[in-house]
Amino acid sequence: MLKTRLDLGRIRAARDVIAPVFLASPLYQCDALGSQFGCTVSIKLETANPVRSFKGRGTELVASSLADQGAAAVVCASAGNLGQALAWSGRRRGLDVTVVAPRQAPAVKLDRIRSFGAHLELVDGDFEAARERAATLARQRGVRLVEDSLDIETCEGAATIGLELVSAVSTGDAVLIALGGGAMATGVGHVLKALAPGVEVVCVQPLGAPAMTLSWRERRVVTTDSTDTIADGVAGRYPIPAVLDDLLQVADDALLVREASIVTGMRMLLEHAGLVVEPSAALGIAAVLENPDRFAGRHVVTIICGSNVNLDAYHRWVTR
Amino acid sequence: MLKTRLDLGRIRAARDVIAPVFLASPLYQCDALGSQFGCTVSIKLETANPVRSFKGRGTELVASSLADQGAAAVVCASAGNLGQALAWSGRRRGLDVTVVAPRQAPAVKLDRIRSFGAHLELVDGDFEAARERAATLARQRGVRLVEDSLDIETCEGAATIGLELVSAVSTGDAVLIALGGGAMATGVGHVLKALAPGVEVVCVQPLGAPAMTLSWRERRVVTTDSTDTIADGVAGRYPIPAVLDDLLQVADDALLVREASIVTGMRMLLEHAGLVVEPSAALGIAAVLENPDRFAGRHVVTIICGSNVNLDAYHRWVTR
Repeated sequence: MLKTRLDLGRIRAARDVIAPVFLASPLYQCDALGSQFGCTVSIKLETANPVRSFKGRGTELVASSLADQGAAAVVCASAGNLGQALAWSGRRRGLDVTVVAPRQAPAVKLDRIRSFGAHLELVDGDFEAARERAATLARQRGVRLVEDSLDIETCEGAATIGLELVSAVSTGDAVLIALGGGAMATGVGHVLKALAPGVEVVCVQPLGAPAMTLSWRERRVVTTDSTDTIADGVAGRYPIPAVLDDLLQVADDALLVREASIVTGMRMLLEHAGLVVEPSAALGIAAVLENPDRFAGRHVVTIICGSNVNLDAYHRWVTR
Repeated sequence: MLKTRLDLGRIRAARDVIAPVFLASPLYQCDALGSQFGCTVSIKLETANPVRSFKGRGTELVASSLADQGAAAVVCASAGNLGQALAWSGRRRGLDVTVVAPRQAPAVKLDRIRSFGAHLELVDGDFEAARERAATLARQRGVRLVEDSLDIETCEGAATIGLELVSAVSTGDAVLIALGGGAMATGVGHVLKALAPGVEVVCVQPLGAPAMTLSWRERRVVTTDSTDTIADGVAGRYPIPAVLDDLLQVADDALLVREASIVTGMRMLLEHAGLVVEPSAALGIAAVLENPDRFAGRHVVTIICGSNVNLDAYHRWVTR
């Protein structure tokens, strides 16, 4: 019996709240990519929307609920994508949005957070430092702190991707999900386990930011002292216990991949699928690259979760 | 009274025939791009499907009708995108597909035509030479020759994009459509004029391949001796009279843009929208670039019609 914090009824209802521009994202087979691996590769593309990542699905739920409650403001910590999405959803509903981000987050993400009308506060240190500062701000101002992966809306918003996968002609044999805080993995995983239990739920995280994967493997929270990865979107150090509990219910496996594989994955997505993606979005392809036998002859679906990447860095990585 | 070869009832019915993977493509506002021009820019993204262009909408109708008639084979001439799409749609229905292409067509397009299982015949010369050879082949074999823009399915397939635009919350003030043979322009234009007559239908063609635009302006077929543009997808020299007649009914304007603007448009779509596109898909942005006052403060929708581009050439063009 599947027991997580998520609820299928609420996930289904979420589709009526989330702006349609984030829903029904493209899902298609990419033969050119599949032939590189000797398997079938389908792409679930979460970048063709105003914030260029899947995070709008969750922030729509958050902002809608805040607006219903008459709230005027909201705060979050973000490496970039959640901040952009919350700024977008908040602006649409007249909310005053403050995003706290690590100073070294990609400039392109920070610029867009500002351009969507949010207040941006930069802090030294990594995402965990931003999380602390955001918590302080929210407490001082008496406004809601949106916590990615902990707040159920962020998981259930992402879970609507799962509904779209299971309603497709073919859901695939395995779905590859980038693993960071766990909102996408627990969300999509919950729906797959509930409605398509035969599909393997495979989480993928960088070796350089392995806290959640190590926690999943040891079935207890494992933290790390630092992170070292270009995949800024998934670089956390402190897994959230409640999210780990959910992940233990829904993930069939959690793989760690090397930075070189992430870069090769980004390059292959450009060369064979014509897609510019941020590093986190290449984790699935990186996993297939590192585990060719495991996926040979199978139908894998990889969720392309974001395309917010600094082009200078991107060109440096992708150009041989 | 709108009088073209196209029929709204058939266009609506087409949605039940076309594989869903080509339908309901993303339509979203790109603030980062709009702020560059001081207008609102929405993107209709026709590249997130197995053939990476809008052509699948039309070839689905062609192949479905051939299969219904018990046909075994089909021939077309193509600079690449129609060939890929026909190969994809034909394979799905067990049709033997032959594509005749100019030898200098982008290698990436030719490779994919082969990989979708079609027979590929290369000819010296340009698209018009391929068209002649394909006609000969079809005659010899007694099979149907698919003629892009002349064959009503190619126009009515593309026209389903128009249905999706008019059913959006905002259809925009002007829709920018790449103009080549005219299938997309007459198709989308027909639906807009029928259902949203206030929306301006603006066709955009390269100065280096202006035959259809010159014909539209002079209201008679004007041919050219050669073409000189990187936008291979729209580089024809002999406008089809019946298509011109339709275009005269539905286009509000036809603009010619310089090669440098096409390149800048491609670069802006990469930098501000994270999209790798082929040159034809940048024609709309090129038109906004060259006519800033005309579009200032307005809401323009640009159809990103294809992303099949040789990356070597792309990098050469886009890298400053």
